[in-house]
Amino acid sequence: MKKNTIVVGAGLVGSLLSIYLSKRGYNVKIFERRPDIRKEQMNAGRSINLALSDRGIKALEEVGIMDDIKKISIPMHGRFLHNADGSTAYQPYGQEGQYINSVSRGELNKKLMDLAEQNGVEIFFEHSFLATESTLMLDNRRMEYAVFSNKNNTRKIPYETDITFGADGAFSKARLNYQLQHDRFQYQQYYIDFGYKELTIPAGKNGEFLLEKNALHIWPRGNYMLIALPNMDGSFTCTLFFPFEGEISFETLDTKEKVATFFKETFTDAFPLMPTLTEDFFHNPTSSLVTVKCFPWVREDKFALIGDAAHAIVPFFGQGMNCGFEDCRVLNELIDKHSEDWNLILEEYQTLRKPDADAIAELALNNFVEMRDKVGDPRFLLQKKIEAAFSKKHPGKWTPAYSQVTFSPHIRYSEALKNSIRQEAIMQQVMSIKDIENKWDDVSVEEKMLQLLG
Amino acid sequence: MKKNTIVVGAGLVGSLLSIYLSKRGYNVKIFERRPDIRKEQMNAGRSINLALSDRGIKALEEVGIMDDIKKISIPMHGRFLHNADGSTAYQPYGQEGQYINSVSRGELNKKLMDLAEQNGVEIFFEHSFLATESTLMLDNRRMEYAVFSNKNNTRKIPYETDITFGADGAFSKARLNYQLQHDRFQYQQYYIDFGYKELTIPAGKNGEFLLEKNALHIWPRGNYMLIALPNMDGSFTCTLFFPFEGEISFETLDTKEKVATFFKETFTDAFPLMPTLTEDFFHNPTSSLVTVKCFPWVREDKFALIGDAAHAIVPFFGQGMNCGFEDCRVLNELIDKHSEDWNLILEEYQTLRKPDADAIAELALNNFVEMRDKVGDPRFLLQKKIEAAFSKKHPGKWTPAYSQVTFSPHIRYSEALKNSIRQEAIMQQVMSIKDIENKWDDVSVEEKMLQLLG
Repeated sequence: MKKNTIVVGAGLVGSLLSIYLSKRGYNVKIFERRPDIRKEQMNAGRSINLALSDRGIKALEEVGIMDDIKKISIPMHGRFLHNADGSTAYQPYGQEGQYINSVSRGELNKKLMDLAEQNGVEIFFEHSFLATESTLMLDNRRMEYAVFSNKNNTRKIPYETDITFGADGAFSKARLNYQLQHDRFQYQQYYIDFGYKELTIPAGKNGEFLLEKNALHIWPRGNYMLIALPNMDGSFTCTLFFPFEGEISFETLDTKEKVATFFKETFTDAFPLMPTLTEDFFHNPTSSLVTVKCFPWVREDKFALIGDAAHAIVPFFGQGMNCGFEDCRVLNELIDKHSEDWNLILEEYQTLRKPDADAIAELALNNFVEMRDKVGDPRFLLQKKIEAAFSKKHPGKWTPAYSQVTFSPHIRYSEALKNSIRQEAIMQQVMSIKDIENKWDDVSVEEKMLQLLG
Repeated sequence: MKKNTIVVGAGLVGSLLSIYLSKRGYNVKIFERRPDIRKEQMNAGRSINLALSDRGIKALEEVGIMDDIKKISIPMHGRFLHNADGSTAYQPYGQEGQYINSVSRGELNKKLMDLAEQNGVEIFFEHSFLATESTLMLDNRRMEYAVFSNKNNTRKIPYETDITFGADGAFSKARLNYQLQHDRFQYQQYYIDFGYKELTIPAGKNGEFLLEKNALHIWPRGNYMLIALPNMDGSFTCTLFFPFEGEISFETLDTKEKVATFFKETFTDAFPLMPTLTEDFFHNPTSSLVTVKCFPWVREDKFALIGDAAHAIVPFFGQGMNCGFEDCRVLNELIDKHSEDWNLILEEYQTLRKPDADAIAELALNNFVEMRDKVGDPRFLLQKKIEAAFSKKHPGKWTPAYSQVTFSPHIRYSEALKNSIRQEAIMQQVMSIKDIENKWDDVSVEEKMLQLLG
C-alpha cells in the first residue's frame, strides 16, 4: 500500500518532491501558506531570477520537465565583469558548451505546481503548518497527523499522514515545530553583515537587452557588488549585495540624492540603464542573508526536512535551489535502494546529505568574497587562467572548483569542497613562483602542478 | 527619576540582578514562571548543588550576602580522584587556602529571593513571559510593556517597563521573543552527545560524610565520569555524565540489573554507598547539556539578556552561575561608569561580556575531556605537577588556567582562554623533552619554560 505523504510548502523544492513521489504512486498533498501564485498578480519589480545549473537540471530531467523549463531559461556562459575603472572583462564559467541558466523563480514554480497537479498531487493554499501530532489507535498503531490552520477557518485542521516533509524554506515552521519536539536538536542560524536589494534594468525600446544577454553581469567593488541576470522580456534583474552598516552601507544611503550619486560614481555604466533606480531603492525591501544548519533532519520513518528548511545557504554559488533539487533526486534514489523502507531511506538521506549541505554552505560563503572582491583582482584572474589552461591539458587531473560544483553533479559537494581546499593550497604555491606573471604558461609551471598533485 | 525595571526569571542571576538594581534605587519587579520554591516541598533527590567560586563570591560580597551564603557552603579544596584500579589521588585546586564551595542551588536561590524582597523587589510567581510590546504615546514617546500570562488568568497582562532583563535561563522565552523581533539574530544551540543524571550518596548513620567532605569527588572513566559534591546534611549529590547512545550508554543501561552490575564493576567504591541507586537511576530524569550562543544581547536602552539566557554553557568548569553573577557585577560597574545612560551601559555590557562568555563556553567544553579522561592519565598529572611547581616558583609568570578562571576574577575569561592556549603550547614542548618523567624538576626544564615564555 502506497503511503500518504504531506509536503509542507509548495515552493520549488516542495513542488518537485511531490512530483517525484506522485510519479511513484504515493498519495501526495501539499500545504502552502501563501495564496496560489498562478492566480495572483505578481508584484512589480519582484521578478527574482535564479541560476539553474546541472544538479538542478538533472532532477528536472528525471521528472520530465526540463524541456519546458528550457523554453523559459536564458543560458549564461560566463561572468561579464564591469570594473571600477570602466574596463570590462569576460570569464567563461567552464568549457565550451557549459553554461548556467537564468530562470524566473515565479515561472519555474508555476510550472512545477502545474506538473504536480497533472500527476495527481493536491495543493491546498493558504494553509499554515502548525504541528505534527500523533494518536495511539486501538490496534496500538500510532496514527500521525499534520495539523494546519486555514485563513478561512480558525479551527486546527488535522490531516492523516504517513510521512511529512518540511519543504517550507529557510524560516521553516516545520523545522521550528520539530525543534520544539526534539530534545537535542542542533541548530544554528548565522547572518552575514550584508543584505541585498533587488533593482532593475528594463529592456530597451524594442525589447532588446541593453547588456550582453548570455552572461551574468558583475560589478565587483571590493566590499560590495552589483549583479544582473537576464530575463526573457529583455530586462535584467539586478541585485545589490551591500553592507547593512558602516561608512558605505544601506544605513548611510538614506536619500534618493545619495543613492543616485553613489550609483553614478560607482556603477557608472549601469546607472544610465536604471531609470527607476531611486524609486526601486526605497520601495523594494532590504533583505538579509542567512545560513541555517541543523541536525537531525528526520524522525524515524515519519518526518524529514528538505531544501532550505534543512540547510539554508547564502546565494553566492547559485546553488540553493540546485542543492534542494538534488536532495529530492538523492531521496528518490534511496527509495529504490531501500525498497520503500522509510526508516532506512530517511536515515541514509540525512547521513548522505548533511555533509554535502554543510560543504555547499561553506563554499557559498567563500564565494561571496570571490565575487565581490577577488574576481576583479589581476592576480586572481591569472590564477584562474593557469587553472583553466592546466585543466584543459589534463582534464582528468584538474576540474576547477566552480566546475565541480556547477557542472559535475556526479561529484558530491563535500568532495568538491575537499578538492577545492587541496587545489587552493597547490595554487598558493604556484602563485608564489617568482615572476609567475610572465612564465605562467611555461612548462615548468605545469610540471610543478603535476608534481604537487602527486 | 529612577527607572522601572522588569526582570524575567527569579533564578540565581535574576534574583541577584534585582538586588543590585534595587540597591541603586530602581523600581524592580521580577516575574517567575514557576511557583515560589520557598513555599513548595522540594522534590526528593533533586538537591542539586553548585560550585561557587571567586567570581560569584565577589558579586555576592558586593551585595552583602556572602556571610549568609558561607554558612550553607562547604569548601572543596581539591579533586579527590577515584581511579578505575581502585587507587585514589588528591589534586589541590590551587594554592593553600584557595577553594571552591559546594552550595545548594535551592538554598542559595531562596536566600537571594529573600534578600531581593528585603530590598523592595516585588516577585510575581507563576507569571510566564510572553513578549515585549510598545505603544506610541501622545507626546511621541514610545511606552514599553512586558506582557505576561498568569496561570489564574488567561488574559495577557502588560506591565510598564523602562528596561526588561531576560534572566530566564538556557531555554529563555525572553530570548526567543527577541529572536522573533530582531531580524539578524545570530543564534546557535549545540548539544553534546552526553547527558547527566543525578544520583545520591546519603549521609552515614550519625549524619557523617561517607567520603572525604572537603573535596569534589571524581570517578574518571575515559568516556564518562561520576562526580560527587558534599551537602550540608552529610550526603553527597552525585552526577553521572554519560553518553546518550553507544555501547555503554543511557540507552543500553535499561534494566536495574544492568545498572547495578555496571556501577559495581565501574564505580566499585561508590556502589556500596548508593543504596537507592537503581531506583534513582530510573526515577530521576536524564538531562541534556547545551551550549547556547547568540548575539546581540541588548536592544537600545530597553532590553538585555543576562546569565544563561545570553550564554548557556556546559557545567564542566563550574562557571555557569559564577559567569552569570559576574555579568551582574560588570553591569553594575557600567551603570556607574556611564552615569545611568542605559544606551551606553547596555552597548558596552554586550561588547565586554560577549567575548568572555564565548571563552568560558569553550573552556567548559574542553574541561569535560580533562575531567572524564585526562585527569586520570599519569602524563597529564605530571604536566600539572610541573606547572604547579613552576607557578609556585614564578607566581607572576605562570598562573594555571584553572586558577585563572576560578580564583582570579580580575582576569577576564577571554584572557584566561588566550593564556591557557599559550600555556598548553609551551607544555606540549616541555612534555616532549626526553625522559621528562625523571627530570621534571631539573633546572633545565625550568629554564626551558622561562625561555619559551620569552
